[in-house]
Amino acid sequence: MGYSLAGFQSEMGISEEDRNSDWWAWVHDPVNIGTGIVSGDLPENGIGYWDLYERYHNLAVETGMDTARLGIEWSRIFPESTAGVKVTVDYDGHDLVSVDVDDRALEHLDRLANMRAVEHYRKIFSDVRERGMKLIINAYHWPIPIYLHDPIESRDSGLRNKRNGWLNHDTVVEFVKYAKYIAWKFEDLADMFSIMNEPNVVCGAGYFNPKAGFPPGFPSPEGGLLAKKHEIEAIARAYDAMKEATGKPVGLIMANGDIQAFSDEDHEAAEVATHSERYSFVDPLRTGEMKWVEALSQGRSFREKSAGYREDLADKLDWIGVNYYSRSVVRKSGQGYRVLGGYGYSATAGMRSKGGREVSDSGWEVYPEGLLNVLSSYWERYGLPMIVTENGIADASDRLRPGYLVSHMKYVERAIEKGMDVRGYLHWSLLDNYEWASGFSMKFGLYGVDLRTKKVQTRPSALVFKEIARARCVPEELEWMVQE
Amino acid sequence: MGYSLAGFQSEMGISEEDRNSDWWAWVHDPVNIGTGIVSGDLPENGIGYWDLYERYHNLAVETGMDTARLGIEWSRIFPESTAGVKVTVDYDGHDLVSVDVDDRALEHLDRLANMRAVEHYRKIFSDVRERGMKLIINAYHWPIPIYLHDPIESRDSGLRNKRNGWLNHDTVVEFVKYAKYIAWKFEDLADMFSIMNEPNVVCGAGYFNPKAGFPPGFPSPEGGLLAKKHEIEAIARAYDAMKEATGKPVGLIMANGDIQAFSDEDHEAAEVATHSERYSFVDPLRTGEMKWVEALSQGRSFREKSAGYREDLADKLDWIGVNYYSRSVVRKSGQGYRVLGGYGYSATAGMRSKGGREVSDSGWEVYPEGLLNVLSSYWERYGLPMIVTENGIADASDRLRPGYLVSHMKYVERAIEKGMDVRGYLHWSLLDNYEWASGFSMKFGLYGVDLRTKKVQTRPSALVFKEIARARCVPEELEWMVQE
Amino acid sequence: MGYSLAGFQSEMGISEEDRNSDWWAWVHDPVNIGTGIVSGDLPENGIGYWDLYERYHNLAVETGMDTARLGIEWSRIFPESTAGVKVTVDYDGHDLVSVDVDDRALEHLDRLANMRAVEHYRKIFSDVRERGMKLIINAYHWPIPIYLHDPIESRDSGLRNKRNGWLNHDTVVEFVKYAKYIAWKFEDLADMFSIMNEPNVVCGAGYFNPKAGFPPGFPSPEGGLLAKKHEIEAIARAYDAMKEATGKPVGLIMANGDIQAFSDEDHEAAEVATHSERYSFVDPLRTGEMKWVEALSQGRSFREKSAGYREDLADKLDWIGVNYYSRSVVRKSGQGYRVLGGYGYSATAGMRSKGGREVSDSGWEVYPEGLLNVLSSYWERYGLPMIVTENGIADASDRLRPGYLVSHMKYVERAIEKGMDVRGYLHWSLLDNYEWASGFSMKFGLYGVDLRTKKVQTRPSALVFKEIARARCVPEELEWMVQE
Amino acid sequence: MGYSLAGFQSEMGISEEDRNSDWWAWVHDPVNIGTGIVSGDLPENGIGYWDLYERYHNLAVETGMDTARLGIEWSRIFPESTAGVKVTVDYDGHDLVSVDVDDRALEHLDRLANMRAVEHYRKIFSDVRERGMKLIINAYHWPIPIYLHDPIESRDSGLRNKRNGWLNHDTVVEFVKYAKYIAWKFEDLADMFSIMNEPNVVCGAGYFNPKAGFPPGFPSPEGGLLAKKHEIEAIARAYDAMKEATGKPVGLIMANGDIQAFSDEDHEAAEVATHSERYSFVDPLRTGEMKWVEALSQGRSFREKSAGYREDLADKLDWIGVNYYSRSVVRKSGQGYRVLGGYGYSATAGMRSKGGREVSDSGWEVYPEGLLNVLSSYWERYGLPMIVTENGIADASDRLRPGYLVSHMKYVERAIEKGMDVRGYLHWSLLDNYEWASGFSMKFGLYGVDLRTKKVQTRPSALVFKEIARARCVPEELEWMVQE
Repeated sequence: MGYSLAGFQSEMGISEEDRNSDWWAWVHDPVNIGTGIVSGDLPENGIGYWDLYERYHNLAVETGMDTARLGIEWSRIFPESTAGVKVTVDYDGHDLVSVDVDDRALEHLDRLANMRAVEHYRKIFSDVRERGMKLIINAYHWPIPIYLHDPIESRDSGLRNKRNGWLNHDTVVEFVKYAKYIAWKFEDLADMFSIMNEPNVVCGAGYFNPKAGFPPGFPSPEGGLLAKKHEIEAIARAYDAMKEATGKPVGLIMANGDIQAFSDEDHEAAEVATHSERYSFVDPLRTGEMKWVEALSQGRSFREKSAGYREDLADKLDWIGVNYYSRSVVRKSGQGYRVLGGYGYSATAGMRSKGGREVSDSGWEVYPEGLLNVLSSYWERYGLPMIVTENGIADASDRLRPGYLVSHMKYVERAIEKGMDVRGYLHWSLLDNYEWASGFSMKFGLYGVDLRTKKVQTRPSALVFKEIARARCVPEELEWMVQE
Repeated sequence: MGYSLAGFQSEMGISEEDRNSDWWAWVHDPVNIGTGIVSGDLPENGIGYWDLYERYHNLAVETGMDTARLGIEWSRIFPESTAGVKVTVDYDGHDLVSVDVDDRALEHLDRLANMRAVEHYRKIFSDVRERGMKLIINAYHWPIPIYLHDPIESRDSGLRNKRNGWLNHDTVVEFVKYAKYIAWKFEDLADMFSIMNEPNVVCGAGYFNPKAGFPPGFPSPEGGLLAKKHEIEAIARAYDAMKEATGKPVGLIMANGDIQAFSDEDHEAAEVATHSERYSFVDPLRTGEMKWVEALSQGRSFREKSAGYREDLADKLDWIGVNYYSRSVVRKSGQGYRVLGGYGYSATAGMRSKGGREVSDSGWEVYPEGLLNVLSSYWERYGLPMIVTENGIADASDRLRPGYLVSHMKYVERAIEKGMDVRGYLHWSLLDNYEWASGFSMKFGLYGVDLRTKKVQTRPSALVFKEIARARCVPEELEWMVQE
Repeated sequence: MGYSLAGFQSEMGISEEDRNSDWWAWVHDPVNIGTGIVSGDLPENGIGYWDLYERYHNLAVETGMDTARLGIEWSRIFPESTAGVKVTVDYDGHDLVSVDVDDRALEHLDRLANMRAVEHYRKIFSDVRERGMKLIINAYHWPIPIYLHDPIESRDSGLRNKRNGWLNHDTVVEFVKYAKYIAWKFEDLADMFSIMNEPNVVCGAGYFNPKAGFPPGFPSPEGGLLAKKHEIEAIARAYDAMKEATGKPVGLIMANGDIQAFSDEDHEAAEVATHSERYSFVDPLRTGEMKWVEALSQGRSFREKSAGYREDLADKLDWIGVNYYSRSVVRKSGQGYRVLGGYGYSATAGMRSKGGREVSDSGWEVYPEGLLNVLSSYWERYGLPMIVTENGIADASDRLRPGYLVSHMKYVERAIEKGMDVRGYLHWSLLDNYEWASGFSMKFGLYGVDLRTKKVQTRPSALVFKEIARARCVPEELEWMVQE
Repeated sequence: MGYSLAGFQSEMGISEEDRNSDWWAWVHDPVNIGTGIVSGDLPENGIGYWDLYERYHNLAVETGMDTARLGIEWSRIFPESTAGVKVTVDYDGHDLVSVDVDDRALEHLDRLANMRAVEHYRKIFSDVRERGMKLIINAYHWPIPIYLHDPIESRDSGLRNKRNGWLNHDTVVEFVKYAKYIAWKFEDLADMFSIMNEPNVVCGAGYFNPKAGFPPGFPSPEGGLLAKKHEIEAIARAYDAMKEATGKPVGLIMANGDIQAFSDEDHEAAEVATHSERYSFVDPLRTGEMKWVEALSQGRSFREKSAGYREDLADKLDWIGVNYYSRSVVRKSGQGYRVLGGYGYSATAGMRSKGGREVSDSGWEVYPEGLLNVLSSYWERYGLPMIVTENGIADASDRLRPGYLVSHMKYVERAIEKGMDVRGYLHWSLLDNYEWASGFSMKFGLYGVDLRTKKVQTRPSALVFKEIARARCVPEELEWMVQE
């Protein structure tokens, strides 16, 4: 039991701003701020994990945590382009089927890398290990170096620019270099690696849903599908490269809702949605089967096409990370589906959901049984070891979090009782942090942090977590909070 | 006392779809529908005013109404380009200072015009007049012919395409032709003309606020300001042209919130907002003074620059139409301002506003005293005759509308008592209609319409309206509903 | 279609206070006011029907009404005791089986009667008739002359005092004198007579439920059951007496909820409740069957005993008045039943009911279909002509009343369509009035009255009523408001 | 820091029902249950403290508590009348000025006492002491032996019966015997004694406010004032007697609201209310001044009369226990005051208070600063050592309790910082218990108890309490929850 955090969301606040990523540019863009696409909150006013990591790790240990999943910021390691590092790349038509990052390339990368950042990450990671916690290092949690993705340019040119992120194979190649480099460099400190966190959100929110406030914020289903394909290739290629550098398990973390049919008529729509948002991402990396679901982000229409098998993609996952917060209720819509408002991730803060459930500050319905459903879905389809890599709630007043915590943990226990191989539960998160386009208003921490003084605020749920951690299960006295 | 309605929002539903406008393309675009930018409701399922106008006019008369403000759809009159019609256009640098549409041009336009549409509009308008109601004809209520504005192309090219609406002077010139043509053609039926309805919303929602769901939905402050300049030129040039064709008063209708400072520290911000959203549009057309406020739609930052006087723009308003629904509460933000959530147009449906007021289905706070404030603001600054050209509420259950109606009418009476020249009150609207990106869900009618059967549903507020119309003032027995 | 009103609730406010009743004493008692048993509002600040009846009758006619049901205050007609008037009374054991009020007694009563009051009532009633409205005169609507019932004394002595209202047969005998006297005196002006309004509330609220704030407010199930028996005897004896004096139909008005079982297990409980609250009152007066349900007011326990038939009670109803406002949902509880909170008359103002319905200012759930159920229940059991003699809603803001009105009237239409003999719908009420222990805060009027100025306030629902009255049915355009 | 509990509310549930008190009779009375005066929940289904005290004491210790305030049930110690025990009683007119319970009387009492109960209480109390907790023994927490008070009889006879509780001096005399007996008997186990808990509620709710559901539930201001006088005499006489038997501090525990004026016009009313509800009870026992405020419970009218000084009452308090839950906002009303709905103890569950605060399940507003005000009021007037002897919240979901706890404790700290002599904070309560007329629905525990299985349920606030107890102050990390 432990926590997950991401670099961009938590590192800044005291020293060492990292201005070299697309997300930095995106949240500082005056047009984005002026039009309300992003909150106007700025990550450089954050909780300062970069400097205060010892304090925070201490807190984690006091809370009974034994695992931390932390991310590395690509743009911190390589603030300047790595394009000059020679690697061998093979294509089969439009498909990138191999990237060979050899030792010479690794040494070249080592000369290009920002050693201060490398050393600082080593200090942070060593501190985790020295406190007896396990460490999962995640390579990619959304920001891309600005030299590979200028989201303002991408938006303003209608995605016609050169530095357009996952729409370019360049990004894939450079990512593989970076991924192998960190596997090589942090091999000794990691217990496990994760290649990417929620790549499905990156292509979905970035290209299908301009209201989400994700870069490049330009609606383009074609762009989204291309980004998805490239992300999958990047994962497969990075897996190959990382496994050369490390014997540690290498996995992938996915974003999930428990996708449910609204009525009996909507079962096919729910299946389509599940393929579109979950299986179409993971299937290729497990079986090599490329079965595209061309879906708009809200999934209101779709077209499926099978692109056959790609040997080069299959069997690239040692474990799966399951992030879960709420459900999605879908209805048939045309040939596709649409997500119903009032339920799951589409409920409204300050009101009960249409399902009569509590709703978080971010408008997400509390729906704990969905975690079990999602775990089952992965388990039955892939049979891989799983970790719940994110689960939590934006709840500034901490009124819902104790029950949320207990209920979701209980469903993890049930998953284990049913024989699923669930190896951990990582809460999102130990601390409040920077919630992307929503800024600091969404408070996901067991502990709050006063952004001015950086003082820590204990929420009751932190105490509840500790009780569970101490018992290594949900103790009977807390079971009354389980919602089912 | 009467009602206002717009063509695109009400005409379709039975026969004669008009597919030749940017708004038609916009609300049918699968990307827009799929991403939730627009509702997915379609105007061709509307209330069928084109066919049922007699029934609806009858209803208006029964409700005690004596005035109708109706719009003409540009794309119905000229489904094909009028670019071939020769007119003399003068520029002074980038400023369009004159468009001369002579008689030969008018005749050419007459040959190009869709005579079935012209004749049908004459029938509709004659029916209004024959029932003893006055008629205000509005030339422009948002849709632009597709040959002048392809909003999908505009969005996807980052506004780099040719058919990009108000960003082109072409659109101004063609609008002037159209405006003169209808003034010439409907001169005998109109009591008054309005050149445009809420041009400030067109540039604001279209270019500053992609979440509004207005075409082209591409965030570009520069684009928005250019569109604003061109709209102002179009109004001035159309005024000149229309006045050649008609002796009837020609005015302009503006969208308004009562802009208020949140605290004493925010008075400057409120002033900036009022300039940005109101005066910067009307001042040029009254005094010729071009004093730009370069503001983002949420007004979070701004820069003011005076561009001196333009003789060619001054004195182009015979009257002003004031549309009013709610207020805006603003705070200082950087050098500019930001609109506070929870108040005015930014409240939340289903909850009280932060000011403790009722809130409509569209999340707009009921704030009747703001109408008096807005009327005063226009009266003091411009001294022109005014008509309240829109005022109403999305309220499917009709719980708020009776009080809304009585209260706002009472404030109109107070404006008149204070000596302001307010010549009428037109409710938005007689009937439910198509609320742009929100579709049919927002119900603004004194009467509902069953979209399937087109049957009319009387709301209690229609009966209240009738009582007021009969008394020609708010009768004492209804004054208890006035909110102040 | 018309309205109902009661003397105590509406007459006072300008002149002629009537201080001679138990209710006057009750609502002025400092202990009652101080302990919150009653509101502290006083009837002498009321709407002044006694003086303003012409204005109000005019309003009724304008609203399209054709019937008024008005009450006479017993204590106005006989401010002093009528015990000295000789009549022949027969008992069979404890049962009062006959009261003979002969002509000599009538003349004696005529000498004792307050002629100013008699004449004033004649003026009020004549005014109704002269405006073309039908008139139903109701003899008893709760207040009892203080010389027959001193509720403070009753409460403080634990019901051991002499002047203890319906617990004494004296009250029955004096009531019969009064009832015959008014039938004799107002025979020419009435279209129909009602003997009592909601006698079931008088014994229920007065003796079973001290929280209701009804005199004598002393919990005593035995007292309540005795009061009930005496009321039934009073109705039967008054019927006999009144029929000697008039050929007009003489009926009884009952209070009703639509009593429903919460679940399948609760059907018996619902049946018990229906007997307890409805049939046990009406059965004796129809068939002579005395089948007591000894129930506590909340009905949590009960014991049934049949006391055989009483010939002297049977067939005493020419018509039944059905008052209906909401439902009651009951569950089995011990051998009896209990009324569930959150539904029907036990919902909470300001929240939805547990059934998801709207709730009035008095905490009563809007449940229109219940009116049809109640009418069916009477129709099937008794087959008598019925009038909906009360139906309305405490709704100061008039948000619920339009829909309430339309929906309930629609259910009356359905009752008629199903073949039931429903002869009228009387709204409670034309005007706001004095709601007993709740005082003036509960506003039941189609029209409000400013208590200071006595000025009338038109509510939108008054206009809706007028539309329905004009059409003599719920017009199609208003049917959208019907809730089902 | 510790907790308070009362015998009747917690002891029963497993073995040893105590049926010999007025409250037992009251909550089992079918009329009370049937009329909803009491909940129908029964104390014999309670949490079983009598049997499970070790488990619960263990829980208290685990929660970091160091003090328990427990009550003894009079009717358990003396199930039969003690009237036969001879004591010397002196009267001065109607005033009971001395009761001398000599050793012989104590021995007589010892023979009459139920030794099983005495021994069992000794076991419970010893267990407290053996766990290192301090013990405050409270003699009277509301139930009176049935032989001294038959509340059904009292109610039904209009308080004319013999066994009518505090209306008889007999009750005073027997109470003094009992009080001295337990001081003598439990002297070795108690750290402090309290004579009574909230005697002001007993006379207020019992005689002024029949809706409160307290025995005898008969409205009688005279009765209430007499009961109040007798309670004060009982406290003074018991103090004298107990001090003969023990050297431990003997105090009194009062119920409190923070009484506030609604507006500037209402300051006098607030002062009157504070005298009526607080000072008129404590002043006599401190200074001997009898200054009656004859107030109705809602205080809507009042009359003050000074009855001079009584030497025999003065200086009978070693310490004061302050129970605090919320505030009362009052307005002037006639010559007295009335408590405003929507605030303090008169808010509504499920809605915000009119002051915009959170509201508990029992409809009590969360108003922590009021605790400081109340403590100041006692401190300034009496200068005695104080203990916060009750403070807590009915909050089944535990959403408000963590903040409630932290905020109120913080205000205790502030009281201490300001120099007040506050010696402890006892939470109401460690465990859910039987909330008198409201039954089990109001859940005041840091821990819940499943009434069927008697299993304990940990609420997050129990963990918060523990953190505070461990730090012996509100730790900085929890201060964010303080509401001010």
